[in-house]
Amino acid sequence: MELRTKTVAVAALEQFCQAALRACGLSEEHARLTTEVLVTTDTFGVFTHGTKNLRGYVRRLRAGGLKAQAAPFVAREGPAWAIVDGQSAIGMVTSVFAMNTAVRKAGISGIAYVGVRNSCHFGAAGYYALLAAKADMIGMAMANDTPSMAVPGSKQAVLGTNPFAYAVPAGEQDPIFMDIASSAVAGGKVRIFQELNQKVPDTWLVDAEGVPTSDPFVYPYKGALMPFAGHKGYGFAAMIETLSGMLTAGATMAQIRGWIDSDPSLPTQHCAAFLAFNVGAITPLPEFKGRIDTMVRDIRSRPKAKGAARIYLPGEMEWEKRREALARGIAMPQDVLASLRALAEDLGMKAAWL
Amino acid sequence: MELRTKTVAVAALEQFCQAALRACGLSEEHARLTTEVLVTTDTFGVFTHGTKNLRGYVRRLRAGGLKAQAAPFVAREGPAWAIVDGQSAIGMVTSVFAMNTAVRKAGISGIAYVGVRNSCHFGAAGYYALLAAKADMIGMAMANDTPSMAVPGSKQAVLGTNPFAYAVPAGEQDPIFMDIASSAVAGGKVRIFQELNQKVPDTWLVDAEGVPTSDPFVYPYKGALMPFAGHKGYGFAAMIETLSGMLTAGATMAQIRGWIDSDPSLPTQHCAAFLAFNVGAITPLPEFKGRIDTMVRDIRSRPKAKGAARIYLPGEMEWEKRREALARGIAMPQDVLASLRALAEDLGMKAAWL
Repeated sequence: MELRTKTVAVAALEQFCQAALRACGLSEEHARLTTEVLVTTDTFGVFTHGTKNLRGYVRRLRAGGLKAQAAPFVAREGPAWAIVDGQSAIGMVTSVFAMNTAVRKAGISGIAYVGVRNSCHFGAAGYYALLAAKADMIGMAMANDTPSMAVPGSKQAVLGTNPFAYAVPAGEQDPIFMDIASSAVAGGKVRIFQELNQKVPDTWLVDAEGVPTSDPFVYPYKGALMPFAGHKGYGFAAMIETLSGMLTAGATMAQIRGWIDSDPSLPTQHCAAFLAFNVGAITPLPEFKGRIDTMVRDIRSRPKAKGAARIYLPGEMEWEKRREALARGIAMPQDVLASLRALAEDLGMKAAWL
Repeated sequence: MELRTKTVAVAALEQFCQAALRACGLSEEHARLTTEVLVTTDTFGVFTHGTKNLRGYVRRLRAGGLKAQAAPFVAREGPAWAIVDGQSAIGMVTSVFAMNTAVRKAGISGIAYVGVRNSCHFGAAGYYALLAAKADMIGMAMANDTPSMAVPGSKQAVLGTNPFAYAVPAGEQDPIFMDIASSAVAGGKVRIFQELNQKVPDTWLVDAEGVPTSDPFVYPYKGALMPFAGHKGYGFAAMIETLSGMLTAGATMAQIRGWIDSDPSLPTQHCAAFLAFNVGAITPLPEFKGRIDTMVRDIRSRPKAKGAARIYLPGEMEWEKRREALARGIAMPQDVLASLRALAEDLGMKAAWL
């Protein structure tokens, strides 16, 4: 599968996204911050979770399900934890606030958990985990979502594709990071196969009877995604549901509205959870970073399997794409450009490069 | 695959294991505690990680790689974390000490991380996660291991099958819990296929060239296990390596010796990590437990996929097996009995039921 792409300058894309968010009533700070999350995600090549989704967020901002002027606040807290209420602010604003809160608390306690309720779809979990890594901490980020994933034995969707990400700071090397869904693939990837009218592997989806299928069009209404590795993805999704929706006394499972398809005048009520481990408080930081560098070089230099050219560290492909994007612009797939064009039309905006 | 089994009373098995450990010089308390971990694991039906492995631990205790008289201690600590040095005590003793430390600290701080270095194979991670759940906390347990798992693109083993477990306390329902390896299956499961002389699915192992194979005998010397879900299992294994071996300034990857095959007079240097989230400090405990009960009942009662009789919660199969074992004895597979018989012979012990 290869999508035609068009190269877009990072600065131009940022300017456009910020203007769109400002037009919906977000403060300059919130527009900048939301743009930073989405455009960074595009530079990593994770186009299913970047600016392609801005149109959906804008629709909800204009309809009232997301509150343009809202700001998250700490509803409860202890020495090493906090519960943040997002007040239906856009998910990126609440999630950055929450991870920054976790980093601040871990600065004192060594480790911190921050749970979030009343948020929305937060885009790519990896961005927030990397926020912690930038502060020399190990970060984790996860969120619940509206049910779109079957579990072993179920006919229909039971849990969300609850994403999980972590990031580890390194010295000379890029941070190690992973950002994955509890499902075999993210729903956004199935939508691309729909747009291309191509069959999917039969480990991705079940049909209306709960039976594996290669038809992408059963998603999301007539079938459901499958968890990765069967009971393992199911178990992680349930763990994420607990740390996000249950420990925050927030919404879970069917209480979460789909951020794409549900009435945009209503809040989606997504929840999330963030963890920060303050490396330098627990072990000498330079030694830790040096050992991560050594591990990275060690893994990368191992003998290759027959037919394999390279061994990538978790996140390494994304760092390479990001460097390329920052140097030469983002190679944007057509589906992302189409979404941005539709957004420009929705808002009566013009952008020469679109 | 079905193994012939023989029913063994829990009390008889406990008595035997405690006597074996006492004969190696463990204190009554440490022998009792180690037995509790291993026999509980057998009652869950996780025979690859229970008393079958006692013979290997005993060999190491007698050869000096495990120190029968050693006790773990807190080497460094902060308000919400600690680093425990196992001093080459048997892994179960150190791991129970570490999780109890995490629970104690989370009692004050709301959440705690305890890292462990200089330990050994700790058996089933799930036992320790459940220790936290018994204290009304969400628990996580993980550990690194000697490399036996290839990563995408590698020819040979790079990381251990680093296990991960979590447990969530419920009200009327059993705790939700999951205990998995980062590999498609645990190495112990491949050993069973070797004993049965049966082929394995070709998603479990790679051969000496790094190519998928269904031959169980490539493991562990001529091939390697594969991670679950490709880059996902790889990413989790790297995360666990970091939280276990790196954050504790302990041993990682090839610095860890195999607990089965390496010189038993040397310490294996396994590391581990434990997390406890004090639910009641963060959110009202009765409401949390009530919501977990509701989620459990909800998931269990969902419409079933074509051909599926039940939907199990994570850990539910294990709880059913445990109830059965406590009521009627443990249905022990022949490979476990053979290992216990060999252990009895090693130690010159007799047990009528063996």
